[in-house]
Amino acid sequence: MSSPAEVAERAERIAPALRQHLPVTAFVRYDAFSDDVGAEVLVKCEHLQRTGSFKARGAMAKVLNLTDAERAAGVVTASTGNHGLGVGNALATLGGHGIVYLPENAAPGKVAALQRFGLELRAEGNDTGVLESKARAYAAEHGLTYVPPYNDPDVIAGQGTVGVEIVEQLDGQQLDAVVVSVGGGGLISGVAAVLKKHLPNLKVYGAQPAADDAMAASVRAGEIVQVPAKQTLSDGTAGSVEPGSITFDLCRDLVDDWVLVGEDAIREALRLVIDTEHQLIEGSAALAFAAARERRSELAGKRVAVVSCGGNMSSTTLVSALA
Amino acid sequence: MSSPAEVAERAERIAPALRQHLPVTAFVRYDAFSDDVGAEVLVKCEHLQRTGSFKARGAMAKVLNLTDAERAAGVVTASTGNHGLGVGNALATLGGHGIVYLPENAAPGKVAALQRFGLELRAEGNDTGVLESKARAYAAEHGLTYVPPYNDPDVIAGQGTVGVEIVEQLDGQQLDAVVVSVGGGGLISGVAAVLKKHLPNLKVYGAQPAADDAMAASVRAGEIVQVPAKQTLSDGTAGSVEPGSITFDLCRDLVDDWVLVGEDAIREALRLVIDTEHQLIEGSAALAFAAARERRSELAGKRVAVVSCGGNMSSTTLVSALA
Repeated sequence: MSSPAEVAERAERIAPALRQHLPVTAFVRYDAFSDDVGAEVLVKCEHLQRTGSFKARGAMAKVLNLTDAERAAGVVTASTGNHGLGVGNALATLGGHGIVYLPENAAPGKVAALQRFGLELRAEGNDTGVLESKARAYAAEHGLTYVPPYNDPDVIAGQGTVGVEIVEQLDGQQLDAVVVSVGGGGLISGVAAVLKKHLPNLKVYGAQPAADDAMAASVRAGEIVQVPAKQTLSDGTAGSVEPGSITFDLCRDLVDDWVLVGEDAIREALRLVIDTEHQLIEGSAALAFAAARERRSELAGKRVAVVSCGGNMSSTTLVSALA
Repeated sequence: MSSPAEVAERAERIAPALRQHLPVTAFVRYDAFSDDVGAEVLVKCEHLQRTGSFKARGAMAKVLNLTDAERAAGVVTASTGNHGLGVGNALATLGGHGIVYLPENAAPGKVAALQRFGLELRAEGNDTGVLESKARAYAAEHGLTYVPPYNDPDVIAGQGTVGVEIVEQLDGQQLDAVVVSVGGGGLISGVAAVLKKHLPNLKVYGAQPAADDAMAASVRAGEIVQVPAKQTLSDGTAGSVEPGSITFDLCRDLVDDWVLVGEDAIREALRLVIDTEHQLIEGSAALAFAAARERRSELAGKRVAVVSCGGNMSSTTLVSALA
């Protein structure tokens, strides 16, 4: 079991080491977006984090806690997305061998990005669930370390360093609410645990696409459930919650309000951030901005942090989202 | 007359004061773009500069050199674009009154961005040439300071601080070439003057859209000439060169090769930067990336700086460029 207090402690313990290898991202007021919501909106710019998302943190935290021998033996994961890039970056930074299972139909640009980190790529089939099982099995069989995308105390602690930085960057100022996108729940578990330790009255909003809301549905059901998932622009949060994931209890205990966002609202938030801040964010980040807009009446006049979790958007997805 | 040596000296003199008010932007290797060109491509990220473009530098340099009385009396300019934002930011930072002449059909988002800096806006007609004359005339009549977008030694020196930072960020490493987009020529004049002082063998590439290449045509003609301008995605470099502009001699003396880039190539460079670096850049920045790609055979194996001059791209322009 990982309690919120344990998560916060672990995040604060790993933060100084993490900072030696990853930049502290900006935490800045978005003026036009603040006007739009009618609140003071401060944005944690993880879309400008190395590898283009917060996932670099959790992977770095996990790899930092391995021994030299464990890193040299190798770590295994299954992801063509931000988690894979995070693992690649951690190994390229700290040294060590990485094996990534990925689908045979992975986009060439994503494959090239992983290759650039010197990872060993294994393309097998096209079912991500099967790939994850294969990666786990290979790691277990050969005594290697499997790095899960969210169901891991070190990974959650790494994502929690986003919260550690926000506390420092607030510099004693009040914060009334935080809005965080939720997929597997690693980011919001880490961030909310840290922030609520320092700001007990903070309200935590968990944002999910209405089209793919496994964690919100699970918390509502009181247990991890599968939901029929439709396609969403927020592909970074897509997917079911792993049975037994430690993020379930954390999300249940730490998230005060679940905001289920429609696809049009995600697209409009993306458009607004591009037109007013000229920042490229990915769908899962636009989701958090959209959730803040959905709760504008509650947030009016308050100081709100929005975690802009990633910026890995392709031109193709961009055009289809904005056209 | 402003000689290259004088421009470099002025840029190096203003750089420390400017740094107190504007961030030093990143100068980073773009890995996928380097692979694409076959060169070591280092990108000066002015698209991440405050206000979204290098224009914040020239305006800040100009306003820094005014007396308190001159700033309080007011400064005048004519721009709805990056130059206007630069002037607004400089006045909001240093204090002082600003008047901006802008066309009646200016985009509402651009107007809102200028208003956010507390500028006094005067919308009159839709001819930018006329607006510039009105702004100049009003400033002269009332003893106010007109801030030109490029034809001014302080403005050029401010843009030249991009070069001052590149020299520092190179930290003694070799640089073989720099690619800079050219409109009025303020940026390339400043950057090339500084860089050639420290790196006398550096080759300076000036990028212009084939559709709107007033400066390249002028240098070819040996005098400032008007060219028939077509529409270009690089709207930030569009427009004729002001008669008598001090940037003409500087461009003639400092630019080693003019690269005239077609619209398709600008669009492809934009797409490549989005897909590989997930950075939103504007057309005038994509122009410089495209020019580097056009000269790939010459640049192969070399270390090249590309100045990514701005990131103020709208969702509408983005979709029409990428669709």
